This record gives sequence, C-alpha cells and structure tokens, in this order.
Amino acid sequence: MDQITELSYALDTFYFLVSGALVMWMAAGFTMLESGMVRSKNTVEILTKNVSLYALACIMYMVVGYNIMYPGDAVSAWWPGIEFILGSADNSVEAVTAGGDAPYYSDLSDFFFQVVFVATAMSIISGAVAERMKLWSFLAFAVVLTGFIYPIQGYWTWGEGFLDEMGYLDYAGSGIVHMAGASAALAGVILLGARKGKFGPNGEVRALPGSNMPLAALGTLILWLGWFGFNGGSELKVSDVESANAVAAVFTNTNLAAAGGVMAALILSRLMFGKADLTMALNGAIAGLVSITAEPLMPTPLGATLIGAVGGVIVVLSIIALDKIKLDDPVGAISAHGTAGLWGIIAVVFSNPDAAIGTQLAGALVIFAWVFGASFVFWLIIKAAMGIRVSEEDEDRGMDLAECGMEAYPEFTASRK
Amino acid sequence: MDQITELSYALDTFYFLVSGALVMWMAAGFTMLESGMVRSKNTVEILTKNVSLYALACIMYMVVGYNIMYPGDAVSAWWPGIEFILGSADNSVEAVTAGGDAPYYSDLSDFFFQVVFVATAMSIISGAVAERMKLWSFLAFAVVLTGFIYPIQGYWTWGEGFLDEMGYLDYAGSGIVHMAGASAALAGVILLGARKGKFGPNGEVRALPGSNMPLAALGTLILWLGWFGFNGGSELKVSDVESANAVAAVFTNTNLAAAGGVMAALILSRLMFGKADLTMALNGAIAGLVSITAEPLMPTPLGATLIGAVGGVIVVLSIIALDKIKLDDPVGAISAHGTAGLWGIIAVVFSNPDAAIGTQLAGALVIFAWVFGASFVFWLIIKAAMGIRVSEEDEDRGMDLAECGMEAYPEFTASRK
Amino acid sequence: MDQITELSYALDTFYFLVSGALVMWMAAGFTMLESGMVRSKNTVEILTKNVSLYALACIMYMVVGYNIMYPGDAVSAWWPGIEFILGSADNSVEAVTAGGDAPYYSDLSDFFFQVVFVATAMSIISGAVAERMKLWSFLAFAVVLTGFIYPIQGYWTWGEGFLDEMGYLDYAGSGIVHMAGASAALAGVILLGARKGKFGPNGEVRALPGSNMPLAALGTLILWLGWFGFNGGSELKVSDVESANAVAAVFTNTNLAAAGGVMAALILSRLMFGKADLTMALNGAIAGLVSITAEPLMPTPLGATLIGAVGGVIVVLSIIALDKIKLDDPVGAISAHGTAGLWGIIAVVFSNPDAAIGTQLAGALVIFAWVFGASFVFWLIIKAAMGIRVSEEDEDRGMDLAECGMEAYPEFTASRK
Repeated sequence: MDQITELSYALDTFYFLVSGALVMWMAAGFTMLESGMVRSKNTVEILTKNVSLYALACIMYMVVGYNIMYPGDAVSAWWPGIEFILGSADNSVEAVTAGGDAPYYSDLSDFFFQVVFVATAMSIISGAVAERMKLWSFLAFAVVLTGFIYPIQGYWTWGEGFLDEMGYLDYAGSGIVHMAGASAALAGVILLGARKGKFGPNGEVRALPGSNMPLAALGTLILWLGWFGFNGGSELKVSDVESANAVAAVFTNTNLAAAGGVMAALILSRLMFGKADLTMALNGAIAGLVSITAEPLMPTPLGATLIGAVGGVIVVLSIIALDKIKLDDPVGAISAHGTAGLWGIIAVVFSNPDAAIGTQLAGALVIFAWVFGASFVFWLIIKAAMGIRVSEEDEDRGMDLAECGMEAYPEFTASRK
Repeated sequence: MDQITELSYALDTFYFLVSGALVMWMAAGFTMLESGMVRSKNTVEILTKNVSLYALACIMYMVVGYNIMYPGDAVSAWWPGIEFILGSADNSVEAVTAGGDAPYYSDLSDFFFQVVFVATAMSIISGAVAERMKLWSFLAFAVVLTGFIYPIQGYWTWGEGFLDEMGYLDYAGSGIVHMAGASAALAGVILLGARKGKFGPNGEVRALPGSNMPLAALGTLILWLGWFGFNGGSELKVSDVESANAVAAVFTNTNLAAAGGVMAALILSRLMFGKADLTMALNGAIAGLVSITAEPLMPTPLGATLIGAVGGVIVVLSIIALDKIKLDDPVGAISAHGTAGLWGIIAVVFSNPDAAIGTQLAGALVIFAWVFGASFVFWLIIKAAMGIRVSEEDEDRGMDLAECGMEAYPEFTASRK
Repeated sequence: MDQITELSYALDTFYFLVSGALVMWMAAGFTMLESGMVRSKNTVEILTKNVSLYALACIMYMVVGYNIMYPGDAVSAWWPGIEFILGSADNSVEAVTAGGDAPYYSDLSDFFFQVVFVATAMSIISGAVAERMKLWSFLAFAVVLTGFIYPIQGYWTWGEGFLDEMGYLDYAGSGIVHMAGASAALAGVILLGARKGKFGPNGEVRALPGSNMPLAALGTLILWLGWFGFNGGSELKVSDVESANAVAAVFTNTNLAAAGGVMAALILSRLMFGKADLTMALNGAIAGLVSITAEPLMPTPLGATLIGAVGGVIVVLSIIALDKIKLDDPVGAISAHGTAGLWGIIAVVFSNPDAAIGTQLAGALVIFAWVFGASFVFWLIIKAAMGIRVSEEDEDRGMDLAECGMEAYPEFTASRK
C-alpha cells in the first residue's frame, strides 16, 4: 500500500516535471517567433528581452509571486514567503505516506510548473511592444507583472480565490495566462504608440515585414509542442485510469485545436487576400491553442478542432481590426492571446455543463480590468520615471545598436549600410 | 491489484503521450530541414506547406484515416468513425480494471501517437516536390494520402491485415511510414519534372544550393530527437521489466544507427568528393534512423551501428543515382526515406529470427506498388483538375511571392534584386 | 510485490530515457550556439563538426569508453567490452525481480544516458577551437577524448575510482563533464593560436562578431532545456517519494541557477560596457547551469539562484581575462564551462555538509591536470601527424569552402564577394 502511494507520487511528480520542461520550452518558442517577426535591426534586443524576462520571471515568482498566488502551499504564513525560498517544503516520506491530506506530488515540482506559466504570460507582452520599447523599462515592468499583477489574479481562480468560488472555469489559463498577458500588452501598446512608418500619413496600414520567417515558423512549432505540457500538465495528475484518460484527451484536443486554427486561418487569408499568408497560419495555430486552453478536456476531438478553427478565424479578423484602429502589435500577440483567449473562456460553455456564460464573461471582465488597469498604471509610472519609448533616432537606427551594442546578422545586412 | 493495474495503465499512457509529443516535434524537424535546403525565394512556401500539411494530416486522420487503419479500435462499426470523433472511447475506470481484454493504455493516447505518424509520412513528400509544386495541389494530395492511401496500407500490417498475417515485420515503419512517403513522393516527382536549371542542356547536374545550412542541421537534430519517440514509443508498453528493457534497447539502437549513418556518409563523401559534405552527413543521419526503424529492438548496439552505417552509404549512392536518372529531389527525401527504408525492411532478417527475406521483400513491394500507384493516379487527377506545377514565371520569381505574397528574408536578399 | 518492483524499474528506466533524450538535445544546443557565434564563412564547418562529433562520441563510447568508465557494469571483464557491444547485459525479468543486488533500471538506459554526457564534453571543445582548426584533426582528437581521456577520469569519480573514495563530490559533472571539456579545449586553444585578426598589432582585442544571434539564443535555450535531463537524470532514480522530491528540487534549482546567471551577466555587462550584451547574457545562462551542476540538489531555491548569479559574474570576468592574455575562444566555452565549472565544484561546500573544500579543489586539480595534460599530448601528436590549423588562405576564404565545399548562406553573403 505505501509503496503504491510512493509510486503514484513519483509518477505524478515526474509527469509534472516533464510538463514543466515543455512549458519552459515555450520560452524558446516566443523567442524564435518574435525574433523572426521583427526587422533585423531590432532582433538582438528582442532576443535579450525574451531571455531576460524568462530569468526575471523565475526569480520574481520565487521571491514573491508564488506565495501570493498559492498562499497555503509550501510556504509559511509570512509574506513574502521567506520560508519557501529557504527551502522548507515538507515532502518527507513520512508526510507523504501519512495519506489523507498528504500532497500527491512534490511541492517543488508544482512550483517549477507554475513558474514557467508566469514566464509565458510575460513573453506574450514582449512581442506586442517590440521594436520600440526600451529594454530596461520593459524589464522593470516584468518585475511588477510577474511578481504581483499576474499572481494576484492567478490567486483569484487557481489559488481558490473569489473567481474560483464564483464558478469561473479556466482549465489551463486562456484567461488567467493568455488574456492576462494580452491585456498587459494592450495597455503598453496604447501608451507606447505605433512604430514609425506603420501607419501612413493618410491612415494607410503599411507592412513592416519580419526578417526571418523560418524562425517564426520554428517558434510556432515550439509553442505547439510546449502546449502539450501547458495543457497536458494542468490536469495535475496522471497516476490513475481516469486521470490518464483525461491527460490523453487533453493532448489530443490541444493538437487538434491547433490544427483547426491553422487551416481556418490559412483558408480565410487565402479567401480574403488571395494569398496563403504564412504569418496568419502561424497565428492561427497559436489562436487555436489559446482557444482550447480554457477547456481542453471535455470537448470531443471534432469539437476541439472546431473551437480551434473559430479561434483561427477570430485571430485573422482581430489582427485586421487592430490595424484599423491603429494599434500596432508587430507579432499579433494581442489578437492571438487576447481575442482568442476571450473566445476560449466563452467556449467552455459548449462542452462543460458546469460552466455558465455569465460567470465566464464576468471572470474575463475581472481579469481584463485588473490586469489592464494595473498594467496601465505601472506603465505610466515607468514612463514617468525612465521613459518607455526609445528615441526616434534609436528607432531608425535599430534597437540592437542602441540598447545592446551589436547586430543580429552583421554580415547579411551589411549591404544596406 | 487494481491499483497496480491503474498505475501501469497510467505509466503506459504517459509514455505514449511523451513519445507522441516527440514525434509531433519531427514536424518541426522536417520544416527546418526543408526550409534550409531550398532557395530563399521558395522558403515561405515550404514553411506554409509543412505547417499546413501537419494540421491537415491530423484532421483527416481523425475524420477517416484512423478508422480505416484500426477498424476495431475506439470506433464504432460505422464508417467513417462518427462515434470516435464524437468521443465514445470507453476508457472508464470500470472497463480498464475489469482486466483481461481491457486496454492497457488510453485509446486517445494511441490515436495521438498514430496521428503524428501519418504527418511524418506526408512531411517526407513536401521536401521531394519542393520549389515547383503548387501549394493547394499539394494540400489536395495531402487530404488523399493522409485520409486514405496511408491508412489503407497501414491497416494491412498494423491493423492486422494481410501483410501482418503474411508475417511482414516492420516495427516502427521503415516501410509503412518512410518508404510509403517516399513512394508517393517519387510518383509526384516523376509527374512534376525537375526544377528549372537543375539539369543543364548537356545533361550535366547542377547544384542549386540550399539557402540556410544551420536550419538544415537543426532540422536533422530535431528529427534525431523525435525518433526516440517514433521508435521508442512503438514498443507500445513500458510498464514491466521486459518492456522497459526493450524500450531502452530501442533508444540505444536508434541513436547508434543515426551515428553510424552520419559517419559512413561523411567518410564516403570525403572519399568520393574530397570534401566533408554536410548535406550528405545530415542525410546519413536520417538514412541511419530510417534503416533501424523496421527493427530497432533485436540488433546489438554494434549491429545497429552497422545497419545505420550501411544506410548512410546507401543514401549517398542513391542521391547520386537519382541525379543520374534526372529525378530531382531537392532535399534527398526519396533516397533517405525510400532507398534506406527498403534497406531497413531487408535488414530485419539479420537480427530477427522471425523474419524471412522473401516476406520482407514482398511486403516492401506491396507497399510500394500500392502507394506509388494510388499516388500516381491522384497526382494525375489533381494535375488535370488544377495543375500541379507553378508557372515558369512564378518559378523564376519564387514561390513565396507567387503563393504566399511575402518573402522569407526580405532584408538579406534585397541586394539581389 | 514483484509487480511493484517491475513498475518501479519501468518508471526509473523511462525517466532515464527521457532524461537522456533531453541531454542528446543539448547536441543541438551546442550546434546552434556555435553556428550563431562564428562568422558565416565558417558555419558549415562548425555544423559538420558538431553533428559528427556527436556521432563519433556515441560510437567510441560504446566500443571502449563505457567499459573504461564503468568496468563492472553491463560488461564482461574483457577489455574493451566485447560482450557489451554484442549485447549481453542481463536485464531479464528473473534477474531483476530477484531483488537485492538487482539493477533498478535497464543497463541500456544507463548506457544511453551516459553516452550523451560524453558527447556534451566533446561539444564544449568544438566552440573554443572554432574558425581555425582542421575538421579531420578535430575528429581525430574526438576519438581519443571520447574513447579514452574522458572515460578514464569519469571512472575516477562515477566509476567508484580514487576521486570517489577521496570524497570528491560532483553530482552531474561541473568538473567531470564541463571543466574536463574546457580543459581539453584550453590545451587545443594554446597550441592552435588565435584567429587571424582577433588581436591587433598593438595588442588590442577586436570583436569578430558572430553571424546569427537568433541561433545563438536558440542554442542557449536548447541547452537550458536539455540541462533538466542532464542534472535531473543524474539523481538516477525517481520512483519513491524521496527520489521524486530530489528530482523536483534539481529541476527547480537548475532553472533558477540559469536565471541567476542571466541576470547577473546582463546587469554586469550593462554596468561595465554600457550595453545589455546578449552574448554575455547567454554565456551567463550557461555559466549558471554549469555552476549548479556539481550540486543541484542541496541548495535552497534562493541559494541556487545566487550560485548561478556568481557563475554569471565569473563568466563575464573570465571572458575579459582570456582576451587579455590573448587566448582566443570564439564562443566563450572555456569561461562558461571551465571557470564556472571550477566555481561549481567549490560551491558544493556551501550546501552539502559532506563536501570539504580541500577535497573539492584536489578533485578539480586532478581532473584539470589529467585532461589538460593528456589532451595537450594528443593535440601535439595530431599536430605533428596531420597539422591542426588550416592554412592562412583557407582561414581567409573560410573553412566552409575549404573543408566542406559549400556555403552556409550562399544567397545572403553573395554581396560580399
């Protein structure tokens, strides 16, 4: 009996760690996607932002974020969780095999899984504010978002706070992670303004093509793979038949939702623009993944494909709409994570009988209002304190030389100079 | 007792899902390999093909393919498997713990694992027909191959059809996946003709160098990693000592066969051309992997290395031979997956006493005849209906502008214009 | 009871194989990192070196290395382990369930895990000697290092040799893998001399910027992911509560040490150079990972972050110092793996009460003396036999055309010619 408990505990912990490693891999996905979608003169800077935001997110979430989000887990009552960062979690053999209230996987594996989620939320933002936001202002915001803004709203649902009590359902975070990231991004984009040259003097929208499409495709496929950890790990348990079946359903549905998103966005862009637009197909994949994230377990495989396909349609329309209202999002992050995230929150009601449309919308509104509002305030403070936008000269010359002192492709772009 | 059954079921399901995720990752491998091997003007198009063929394969296999290939599994007797896509698989706790006939892993984890295989077969084709086939004609063919041609022959062996009864052995699909994909590719290449400029007026073979070698190397290493899922997952079970040892042997042999393939191709290309040809070494890795796929369990580690090394020699000779007969395969896919796949089918007899050379060859012939023949017919139909080759003008200008309306590297190739 | 033993054995084997696959993935990390950090004219050659060194390491370690390092495991008493490569490991069900001395995971899974480690050590070297060492001389050295130099010192600690008896502690190989690789690299760099143009006539240090920064970032993130297998798998067991908790702690600490390394190196480079230097941040990540590798289990999460941060400071200072003494290491490998590796060996004493500073330093000295000395001798022999440095003309023109007969980016660099 005890040995079985130990084995279950070990399998669930291992499953959690593998899932977490896959989510960490999403950091590489965002890094590649964003570096492929920006112009070459801003590439080193976006790489630096992505690598350092991940590092910063991990540190801030350890020091304060995790304790805010899960106040009863693995931490003392002391804020900001001094005991946790000093390593006091009680996962001794005795504590576990005592059964009953015992944890069924390692506390640290839970922390590892959660910390890669907060980094995902922050990664969404870097794409939307790319090519014009100051590096260190961005990192200052990352401290606030990953340490405070994200964990506070995360607590409301996953930490058993008031959104959870209200019945808001969000399996792996269409709202809590993706729409939250997009809401913070939107606040930044509004304050920051569009890139120079994005909108012409007569209001026309100009393409500023990304410099490296294979990296954008690679990034999307990395995200697709990582999402098996993101959604698949969110079942939190795999060690019995019911859980194992659930995890298998989540993997299958996650994959099919992405497939539906790709095909819908590809066909729609072909119909609307006459061309098979790769960037739309890639954003369709991400939108499909975001759409299924609030409820990847209950839909049938066909249902998941359709939910993803609707996400793929939504992202194309949303990208066009944002351009119309002159909100400049270089990689389409607000549409793929925000608009599709809202759709994902709503789509829960089609397959989960416990979900109510009103509660889902209320949850979405609360998350948006909090993250958008708090982010807006902090972006404003940072703007006042150190500025958020690089100088016009640095924008022309490129962020790479200005912020990082090097070029991404010194030999390929030499002919331009 | 019941709890042990549950844990075994959970471990096997998790093993299946991790393996499937690794095979899904092979889609990124093919995408990077092919985008590195084509010229920059055709890069966006090959990215679009790879991402959308994966999506399409998943959808078609769900709707019809899986039901054709495994008629008794997880589906009703109704074709095309309405019940499955509506989610009727009975993996309830009761069904499983009843023992005896109970499944030992989740049906949906099996579907997930199988669906990534069919995408692999289709990915092989996109490389061979690169730089000249129309995008939408290719996708039309993908519908037919992934929904019908592949699953029908898959059923013959893995679905317990007549090849299985005959004793044809193909552990993870040297023939069923790789040679099948290459056979369909060959039919397409024959109908399509060579790229403009590949063969000179006096019959000389001209190199059309790939535009991005690091991506080709990355793609190959992704495939190498993914193959641990492809072969390792094909044991179907890991939860007892015998199965665990088998999976470990498969991982070890898969790795060593690739290593043997690299070294053989590298040394042979050095001897033949005087240079250490990277593209040959990469194709050697893939050929080594394909060669061991029909029987990665029984060979000793040394035997696996040698089987892979022979594959590495074969792929170099096959690439040269195809050039001689003026079959233009931009990435060497027909050689790495087809010729080496045939060698893999044959090599089973060296280590598996149950294999007979005649049966193996008969199986190879049946698979080739079916896939090549059926593909040839469908390529012809598509050619008649919508054409399969882009216009000469579009080929000169590049598929990217013609089909997708964008460039892969707008800033790096600007000096050419 | 027996069934539980079987399940534990299966889970531990699967955990080992997943970990090994992640470490194999580090080969892709080194390949991308190094190909991004060299100039475009030397890119194909560094790709070829990385792919073939991995293949060669696997083959050499199978044929002789593993038997030297673990003489009692899975091999006969005959050197060089004929029995092992012929497949005699006894992992039969009977042998395992006999309990007691029975292995608790598959021997072949252990071999697979170990073989990817030796490839890591060799990968470190290729970066340091990049852009000037002959390909085939490098591969000749790879035969010696992976077959003999590395396994001999590996035996001293992990094979229960004299360093183990002395009490030298090195959990996953800050010294045994990373500092060992860096020591061999240092010997090569000293004999090889700097790249043309690296140091000016008046002793000034010139930057020779890498050609593709996104690949360097991707490579670093791949290494970060792979390190979860490298350190996480080195617990060797996950199937009970204590082991599972340990593996979770190792994952968490590994991640946080990398995060600490990034932030420390980024901030230090900003303070020292006025710019957020991406290559320093990337080397900071690697140095953080190397620093925690000797003891990723015992530190608290906060302690691990600090150990990594010190590693991040050390790598920046070490890179500057090596430039000062005119040792040319194009990717910073000697600093990130060697200097930070030494710090990692020392840092064990801060958290592990069994470690003694004298013993740790003695262990480091022994490893350095052996690997540096033996490597120096073999580099000298190779130099005498076939030369180690390409001709000045080939260095100017690029190694790619000279050694491999092709270019990495034929279309992007055309304007230079």
